Parts: sequence; C-alpha cells; structure tokens
Amino acid sequence: MVRVAIIGASGYTGAESIEILLRHSGAKLTYLSALPEECGIISDMFGRFKGRCEMIVEPLDLEKLADVADVALCCLPHKVSMSFVPKMLEAGVKVVDFSADYRLKDVAVYEKFYGVKHTDTDNLAKAAFGLPELFREKIKEAELVANPGCFPTGASLAVAPLLKEGLIEAEQVIVNAVTGASGAGKNPSAKFHFPNMNENIFAYGIGVHRHMPEIEQIMSDTAGKPVTVLFQPHVGPFDRGILSTVYSKPKGKVTNEQLVKLYEDFYAGEPFVQVCEGSPNVKDVAGTNYCHVFPTVVKGTVVCFSAIDNLIKGASGQAIQNMNIIFGLDETLGLK
Amino acid sequence: MVRVAIIGASGYTGAESIEILLRHSGAKLTYLSALPEECGIISDMFGRFKGRCEMIVEPLDLEKLADVADVALCCLPHKVSMSFVPKMLEAGVKVVDFSADYRLKDVAVYEKFYGVKHTDTDNLAKAAFGLPELFREKIKEAELVANPGCFPTGASLAVAPLLKEGLIEAEQVIVNAVTGASGAGKNPSAKFHFPNMNENIFAYGIGVHRHMPEIEQIMSDTAGKPVTVLFQPHVGPFDRGILSTVYSKPKGKVTNEQLVKLYEDFYAGEPFVQVCEGSPNVKDVAGTNYCHVFPTVVKGTVVCFSAIDNLIKGASGQAIQNMNIIFGLDETLGLK
Amino acid sequence: MVRVAIIGASGYTGAESIEILLRHSGAKLTYLSALPEECGIISDMFGRFKGRCEMIVEPLDLEKLADVADVALCCLPHKVSMSFVPKMLEAGVKVVDFSADYRLKDVAVYEKFYGVKHTDTDNLAKAAFGLPELFREKIKEAELVANPGCFPTGASLAVAPLLKEGLIEAEQVIVNAVTGASGAGKNPSAKFHFPNMNENIFAYGIGVHRHMPEIEQIMSDTAGKPVTVLFQPHVGPFDRGILSTVYSKPKGKVTNEQLVKLYEDFYAGEPFVQVCEGSPNVKDVAGTNYCHVFPTVVKGTVVCFSAIDNLIKGASGQAIQNMNIIFGLDETLGLK
Amino acid sequence: MVRVAIIGASGYTGAESIEILLRHSGAKLTYLSALPEECGIISDMFGRFKGRCEMIVEPLDLEKLADVADVALCCLPHKVSMSFVPKMLEAGVKVVDFSADYRLKDVAVYEKFYGVKHTDTDNLAKAAFGLPELFREKIKEAELVANPGCFPTGASLAVAPLLKEGLIEAEQVIVNAVTGASGAGKNPSAKFHFPNMNENIFAYGIGVHRHMPEIEQIMSDTAGKPVTVLFQPHVGPFDRGILSTVYSKPKGKVTNEQLVKLYEDFYAGEPFVQVCEGSPNVKDVAGTNYCHVFPTVVKGTVVCFSAIDNLIKGASGQAIQNMNIIFGLDETLGLK
Repeated sequence: MVRVAIIGASGYTGAESIEILLRHSGAKLTYLSALPEECGIISDMFGRFKGRCEMIVEPLDLEKLADVADVALCCLPHKVSMSFVPKMLEAGVKVVDFSADYRLKDVAVYEKFYGVKHTDTDNLAKAAFGLPELFREKIKEAELVANPGCFPTGASLAVAPLLKEGLIEAEQVIVNAVTGASGAGKNPSAKFHFPNMNENIFAYGIGVHRHMPEIEQIMSDTAGKPVTVLFQPHVGPFDRGILSTVYSKPKGKVTNEQLVKLYEDFYAGEPFVQVCEGSPNVKDVAGTNYCHVFPTVVKGTVVCFSAIDNLIKGASGQAIQNMNIIFGLDETLGLK
Repeated sequence: MVRVAIIGASGYTGAESIEILLRHSGAKLTYLSALPEECGIISDMFGRFKGRCEMIVEPLDLEKLADVADVALCCLPHKVSMSFVPKMLEAGVKVVDFSADYRLKDVAVYEKFYGVKHTDTDNLAKAAFGLPELFREKIKEAELVANPGCFPTGASLAVAPLLKEGLIEAEQVIVNAVTGASGAGKNPSAKFHFPNMNENIFAYGIGVHRHMPEIEQIMSDTAGKPVTVLFQPHVGPFDRGILSTVYSKPKGKVTNEQLVKLYEDFYAGEPFVQVCEGSPNVKDVAGTNYCHVFPTVVKGTVVCFSAIDNLIKGASGQAIQNMNIIFGLDETLGLK
Repeated sequence: MVRVAIIGASGYTGAESIEILLRHSGAKLTYLSALPEECGIISDMFGRFKGRCEMIVEPLDLEKLADVADVALCCLPHKVSMSFVPKMLEAGVKVVDFSADYRLKDVAVYEKFYGVKHTDTDNLAKAAFGLPELFREKIKEAELVANPGCFPTGASLAVAPLLKEGLIEAEQVIVNAVTGASGAGKNPSAKFHFPNMNENIFAYGIGVHRHMPEIEQIMSDTAGKPVTVLFQPHVGPFDRGILSTVYSKPKGKVTNEQLVKLYEDFYAGEPFVQVCEGSPNVKDVAGTNYCHVFPTVVKGTVVCFSAIDNLIKGASGQAIQNMNIIFGLDETLGLK
Repeated sequence: MVRVAIIGASGYTGAESIEILLRHSGAKLTYLSALPEECGIISDMFGRFKGRCEMIVEPLDLEKLADVADVALCCLPHKVSMSFVPKMLEAGVKVVDFSADYRLKDVAVYEKFYGVKHTDTDNLAKAAFGLPELFREKIKEAELVANPGCFPTGASLAVAPLLKEGLIEAEQVIVNAVTGASGAGKNPSAKFHFPNMNENIFAYGIGVHRHMPEIEQIMSDTAGKPVTVLFQPHVGPFDRGILSTVYSKPKGKVTNEQLVKLYEDFYAGEPFVQVCEGSPNVKDVAGTNYCHVFPTVVKGTVVCFSAIDNLIKGASGQAIQNMNIIFGLDETLGLK
C-alpha cells in the first residue's frame, strides 16, 4: 500500500483527493496537513466526511511526514508550495504538486505571471509535467510531478492529436472555456456569493489568465514548436466541470472522418479519454477522472470540444493518476 | 410626485427598491444614502443599473434629506436603524423602516432576540406594522411604518383568514419555510459561497430565529389572542422566493370547500394576494409583489401554503406598497 | 463474486446502481435488462458510462437471467414490477425490488394508493422491508427485499429512536420534506422542464402522496403501535437529496442532551447514519449512502432533521446495502 | 394607446411580451391568440399572471384582430408564421414577427437552413430587420418588422462598431455564445429535463445552427461587404441570458483606448446599449432590455463580449422596442 499524505488538506482539491483515496485499493491516507490556521478534524471542515474520514489535519511536521508517507499530494497555493516542496523531497517523500510553481519551465514567464521570484529552480528543472496522456514516460521516473492546471488539461487534450500530427496552424489557437464555480476555491468572495453567481455567467482573467502560458507550453511541447494561444475563461453557475471549445486553422483540408480516426487512434490506449460523436456534456464527466473530446470541422475551422471535471481530471484525480504511475500501480486505481 | 430617499441603498433591499421606483409613475428617487464605507455610484455597486440609474450614494446628510425627500425607505440593518430613524422623523421625513427595530411591540422580546437595548421606544410605540392586508387602516395614518420581515409576511398571509375567524387552535401553529439565498444579504460567507449553497438545502436558526416572535405577534394580533408558533426556516439553492407550509389544527371540522370560500372572501379586495387551486410556485411570484396562497385539509390538519418573493412582497415591494398607502396613492403603483 | 443483474437499467436508479457496482469489490454486473423499447447500449443512454460500462441492455430473458445472475436489482416501475418478480424468484434469482409493489403489507392500502389489484400477494407476505437500520435481521433471511421509498427512508431514520423508545405521541407526526428533482425520474415533463423547475420550489402530492402510508407502516412497526403521519413533500431546484424536517410531540419532557444520547446510542453501530450537531446539509450526503440526522427540542416540540441522497440511500445505495446483507458480504462494500 | 395583439401567446416569448405590456404606458393588450390546441386562460398557462392578466387566449380570428388591434406581435414558430403574417398585414394590422421567416433576405439560404419553401417572398422583401441600433431608419417606415434572433442580437451588437468602421477582417469572425435554457422554449425534452440540464453545459447546433446565416447577414450589412462568421452556441444551467464572446482579427494595430472610444461614440445615443469596463454579467441584464458590451485586445486579437436577456433584448423587449419605433412612441416605453 502506498502511504499518502495530503498537504493543504483544508481546500477543495485536498478534500477531493481524500474522497478518491477513501476508495483506492492500492493506497492509504496516512497524514493530513495544512497551514496552522486551517487545522482541525477534517470532518468538521467537510461534513461529508463524517463517519468516513475523521482524521486530524495537523501543521506540517516534516519528520512525521517522512515517517508515515511515501508520497505527498501538495495542495498548497501557488507561491507557498515552492517553499515546502524542496523540504519534502529532501525528506525522501515524492511529491505531486498541485500549484503552478513547478509547471512553467521558463522561469521568466513564471515570474511575470505570478509576480514573485522563483526560489526553487533546481527542482523546477527536474519536475515532470503531470499530463499522463502526453508525458507519461517522464512521469514514471519522477520524484516530483507538477500536476497541470484544470484549464490546461481540458484545452490540451482537446487538440493534442492535431498538434502532435502538425495538422493545425501554430499561430492561432483560440481556447474558449467555461468552468464551474468550484474552480474559485473555498474562500467566499463577492463574485462567487450565491446570489451573484447563481443565474450568472461572465468572463474573467481577460488577457491575463495564468493558465495561458501553461497551455502554450503544453501545446508547444506537443507540437514540437512554439504555439500561440489565446485563452479566454468564463465561469458559470454550476459546481464542477470545464467545457472547452478550441478553434484552430487546419494546415490543409481535413475531413470529419479523418478527425475521428486521428482522435480514436491517438487516444486508443488511454483509459480516461473518450472520443464522443457530438458535444461533450460536463455532467457526463462530473465526478469522474474522464475527459470527453469531440473534434469537427466547421467552415474550414477545426472546432474541438472537451469536458472534464475541474476538481478530478483537472486536479485531484489527475494527481492520483500521476501517483499511480510513479509507484507502478495500475494507472486507474481509485479512479474508474 | 412623492420624493423618495433610500437610506442603506447599497444592499439588496435598497437595490430592489430602486428597481421598483424606476418604473413608479407617482414617485421619484431623489436621494440615495448608505453608511460611509458603502458609498459611491449605484451602478458601480449593481451593474444592472448602468444607464438606468447613475445616482451617487452619499453618507447621510439629514438636512439634505429633509430638503429633497418626503419619505425615506430605511434599509439599514437591525440595531443601526433605530439610531437614524428618530432623526429622520424629526426632520419631517416619513419613514418606512425595513429593520426589525420597530416591529416588535414588546421591548423585552426585542431585547432578548436582538441582544441590545432598544433606544427609541417612543417611536416604536407609534409605528404602524406594515402588512397592509391585515393592518391597512393603521398604516394610512402613520409617520413611521415598520416593514415586516420576509418570513412573517409569507407565514401570516398563509393563515390569516383562519386566525381572524378563530377556526384554528392557537397553541400549535407550525411554520415550515424555505427561502432563496438572497435572504442572506450581500455579504459573502462560507454558507452562501456558491460551491456550498448550490445543490444544497439546510435548516438554520433552529429554535432561535428572530422572525419567530414577529410571526407570533402578527398572528396573535390577527387572532385577537395569543398564538404560539413554531417557526423553522430553511434555505435552498435559488435566488428569490419563500415557500411557507403552515400546519395547524382546526377547532372543528373544516372542509376544503369552506377553506376556499373563506380565503376568497377574505382576500377578495386585495390587489396582491391570489388564492390558488394547488401548491403555489415561488417562480410564479418571483419578481412580483404577489402572494399566492393555498389552504387545504389533510387528515384533520389544515395545511396552508404561501409563496412570495422575499425581496419584493417580503421587503421592498411591500415597503413601496406601504409608501403608496401613506401618501394616498393607488396602492399598486409601481407594483403591478 | 455476487453476480448482479439490473432489471430496468434504463432509468436513474438503474444507472445509479451501475455506478455503485462498478466499484464494488464483492459483486459484478452480469446482466442489464429493460423494457424492450428502452434497450440498447447503456453508454448511449448515459454518456457518463462511456469507457466505463459498455454493456448492452436487453429485453428480459428469464433463462439467461437465471444463468448469469445470483440477484436482480429490479428497478421497474410500480405495478410493472409485480408481474416480473415472481418469475425471477421462481427462476432461483434473489430480488431487491425498488418499486412499491412489495412494501405495503396491507393489500387494501396498496390497492387504494396505487389503484390496481395486487397480483402477487404470496411474495408480498414473504418480502422483507429493506431498511437495514430497522429491519436488518429479516433482510438477512430474505429471498425478496422490498427496497424502501426515498422519502420513507429519510423520514423514518429521522425519528426512529424516538418511536422505538416510545418517547413521542403517535398521533401527530408531521413530515415536511424537500427533494431534489431527480426524484421525478427520467421522463421529461412540464413541471421538471428546466425553465420551470429552476429557481422554483413547490409542494406536490398534497394529501395523497403514496409514501404517506409507507411512512406510517415503518413508523408503526418501529413504535409497535399505530402511528399517524402527515407527510408533505416539496421539490426544489437541485439534483439530489432529501431534507426531511419532522415535527412531533414528546410524551414527557425531553432535553437536547437526552436526544443526542438517545440518537448516538441508537445509531452507534450503524455504518451509514451519522448524528450531527446542527442541521444536516443535503450536499454533505449527496453522492453517498449516508444519512445525517439531528434531533432537537423547540418550544416543547421535537424537531428532527435528516438528509439523504434520494438516489443512493433512498434507492440504489440502500438496495446494494440490502444485497450485501443478503449475501453475507460486508454491508458497506461499494458504499463507503 | 397602441392596441396590441399577441399571436402565439402560449409560449415564453408571448408571455414575456405580456409581462412587458402590462407596464407599458403607451400600449395596451387587446387580444391574445394561439394555435387552437394552446388556447385557454393565460393565467392558467402561466401562474404568474394570476390577478395580473386573466385574458383568454383564443384561436386566431382575423376580423376580430383587425377590429381590436393596431399591431400584432407574432410569436408563432418558424415556418408557421409566414402562413399567417400576410393575412394580418392584409387586414391592416402591422406586424412584428418573432420567427425567422422574414429575417433572411436570401431565400435560398432560408430554404436551405429551414428546409421548406418560402411562401411569402413579397413581404420578405419589404420587411425591415428589427435591430434598432443598426437599422432604426428602416424600422420607422415598416409595416412588417422581422424581429432578430437572440444570438444574432447579442453577437452583432458586440462587434458592430468594428464592422461599421471596417476595423476587423471580414473572413474570420468567431462567435462563441452561451445561452440560458429558456432559449429552448416551453416544450419539455430530454436535454432540457432539469436533472439533465442542471449542473451541465454543452454545445449544440455544431456547424448548422440557423442563427449562423442570420449573423452573417447582419454583420455583412453592417460592414458593407460579406463577412464570414463561425458561430458556436452552447447552453448552460440558468434561465435567462446570453453571453457572447466574439473573436476577430484587427486590420491594423488597435489599442484598448481606441476601442473604448469607438464603442462609446458608436453607442452614445443608444438607450439600451452600455459599454462596460470589464466582462458583462448576464445577471446584470437579465430581466431588462439592455445589452452590455465590452471590447478589448488580447495578443493581437480583438475579443468583444456582450450580454443580453435572450427573452427580452433577444426577443420580446426588442419587439416592443420595434413597436414603439413604428408607432412613433418613445422607444424606451415599457422597457426602462
């Protein structure tokens, strides 16, 4: 049994990770930690754990962590994560990190979008990017995996086969996405106050969303050359899920039949990606680690859709998929 | 034209009052005020007023108020209201007060439920209780009207005909109600954070909700003798509306035919109460000043339903109905 | 491995049963059946099964059923079920039946509320009532289990300790409940059309809901004497869950401390019932087989709350809990 | 007082038109009609009209119509409308038609997208296209106005200033839009069944939506040359509103300052278009006839947002705005 710690257990992705691990047959939760002001009994923070998980969330004790855990799912916020991750690695614990701190290979881009100096560039250089469908081989060897952002996961899986095969122009990929409100995290705010968010939909992060460079990095890595992405997120009145609609220009003529074949071949061995025959529905993937994709051609533009659960395939589920890979377990344990 | 000021314009009931007044043919908005930290342009606070109402919300200036307004809709919070209302009255401005400060005639009950000393008992004694269907005559003469709470409005209209006619036992009225989340007001909180409130319903204020004594007061006044009420509110995942389900014991045998006749007679002249032939739907009254009621007998118990919009008939609409009455306008102006 | 068939797999409770069985370590799905017009590939009916369950739903073939299954979860509608269940039992397959056909022990009551003659009274007499917390011993021995209705499950668990101990009056139990819209089943209708149901809440089944006699039967069995129940359901704008608020009169004086102790003792060994310290939230139990309860005293009335997921503890989860019991498996398999 | 008939009063746009006309000071409802199977008392069809509008919806009687009405708001479905409109015009009644039958000037395009032969090309040629912000002068003179579709209204207003000034490329306008579920109309269906639509979002009409040629026609008319549009609609879990996100390529360099000035100038005199400083929120325009727009430049692409209420500015409100124009009334009557 892989022994798992969750660092930053008091937030939504921490809780979702617990939810998955409670029914994981090859791993067990051994340690929950959070920032000191967020500690207490987990079932007091999330009523749904009553009788299911009554563990105590404690301030981080690195010795204890090293003693009881083989791996840490680090759900700490951006900028905070990089001050803890190196210590956990030094203590001999593998890490799947949910923050952006180890995702962007270009430190300058990180520092521009996150507004702080990166303090752990050594580990950044070694970290694997945890999108198994695209980078599985590197994940297998990693001590540290940078778990992707939710939007980058959905957007990249929507067009990866096209990029890999060089079938679309690299200059004009438009990613239009709508996320559910859980993406905003647990802290109350005016925008996500129920009477404002309910019956509402709006765009945000216009031109500056931090997932834009991350999507560009994944797409460029996949295409083997620089890809320019315009990413526009929106948020709608539902809990979970991201629907991405990705517009791109094919290099030559492409038919729907070609697209279907391309996608089915590309994702043939993938346990969590399904090629649909029409628009994905976020409700079909909510609560699962699946990504539903559908590519089509409209008036000479390739339009690709994908749906994921932002908290699962977009966060905790993918982290546990990465964990399974690192430890040589069946990749789908706890996730089917 | 009646000149209307809104004091406490930065909250939901203030905004809803503006919304109604924008299409009121016998009144016009002349002044918006709020606590100093809540001031600014109203359309910056509520985007829906862009191009419709661009007035400035200012800190309260009593002289200016007296100069430009005939009446103030006072949307300040409980306990705050009673420190401003006497000054407005002295300045010669009539007041419809939305807080609980002038509702409970028994000062001891007020002080127990609101946990502060009442500092304006003189005006409390003079205030009319602003439920027009039950107390219209007193409202006509009033300088100060205590606008009822949202739950008390819905609950009282559901059973008033039975109480007035003495047809139900006074000892065991159970009011079970479900409100939309706008009842929580504009300030973000963990319970009303969208990811918690959406897809959720829960009870609150168990045994201690402040509307319990208010409901008892209205029902007792209507019955002409003390009525004991058990009031249990719940909140559900929708913006607006309250559905009340009121259980009571008939004194003798009562039939559905008698109930229908009783209710239709009782509410015959009322512009805003409609007797339905089945369960009211909150969606039918949302956005209106209407109250839909339906009484029936089940296994010897009288079950009465009512639906209102908590922000309109339960707050701003009723306040403007009261204002219309005070100034001798058609009671339905701005509200049909 | 217990081999499980689902009869009536095309509806919500069928799908939810599949969902649970996909991660049940002691049982496996071997057969899906439905009425002929509802047949096809399950993942075409419910997109969320793409890549997770691609079984074919076939018209019922009793020989095949007997060949491949030890137990049938029968999700057929009321009145239809009793024409198939005797044949399945004869074929040697155990049955957990989701319909009302084997719940009401008094045939006359069944025939009054369901408007048809009961055609399988022999098996009705033998059927165990599948509420494990109250009738576990009988379930253990059963070939046929009548899985309870969703409302009866929530309502009964809310007050069972009080009834068992004879602490409340049997004449005046009021059950006020609000269910999510999945309770209406899969067939589109005007009331559950999104633009009508969204932002709405209303009562239904006023005075005539079929769960009323079922609740009375359970409560009477638990109390050991006839209990009279007034049951009033409502439906609100959310997918899953039932919040029940049950009002009853204590026989003598009862304190909150006594209630808490009573409930904690009564449910001490129960894996799926949790006693809360305040109102349950339906969101905390949604997606789980748990029931959260909270009892309290308000002004001399005992008010008990419970929350369940109507499709899980109120249907498919409880059915699988019953199946686990029948086959001597750990009762919680697939459900924790 | 303009005397108004509503033909097709039993659907959502009919009801919304009634709602607006109930508070219109320059027009009054004189006649409600619908297909014979849809007739009855309007408040029985829509509970919110109880006590507010108790008119009878009758089968269409052209003589009566001509007798009591100056104008008909024709809310009949596509294809049905064109068999009634010519008769109403002949009878001397002006018509604002909600269907697509008089919108597409190119009959071949109409016949391709709607799959029927156009049977009233004479009136089609004469009809004004009812988007006042772009075609007000023609509307003033019209006997027949083709009221625009909801998506075309939102999409066109989002980019009209750019097209008018020739600032964007005509070959690559991408319109990505999300509508609320009321856009699906009143008839229940599997997709819009609450348990499917709630907590869901999906794309539809991929590549074939009928509003695509309509948007192209408006944009081409505005630009003065052919514009090619890729339009992709989605539907989300809310009642009302459309958020459009429109991507286009500027011809030269354009700054945010230029965009703001351009939009403010272009819409300066428009009573119902507001230029925002960030993303519009559909909740801010829901229940109003307003359109909120916001243009910006992101990485060399112009991204324009707009929000409207699909049933008001996208249907009934705009129809009444058109009606006001035709009859020389203040364009905002009933709509502010």
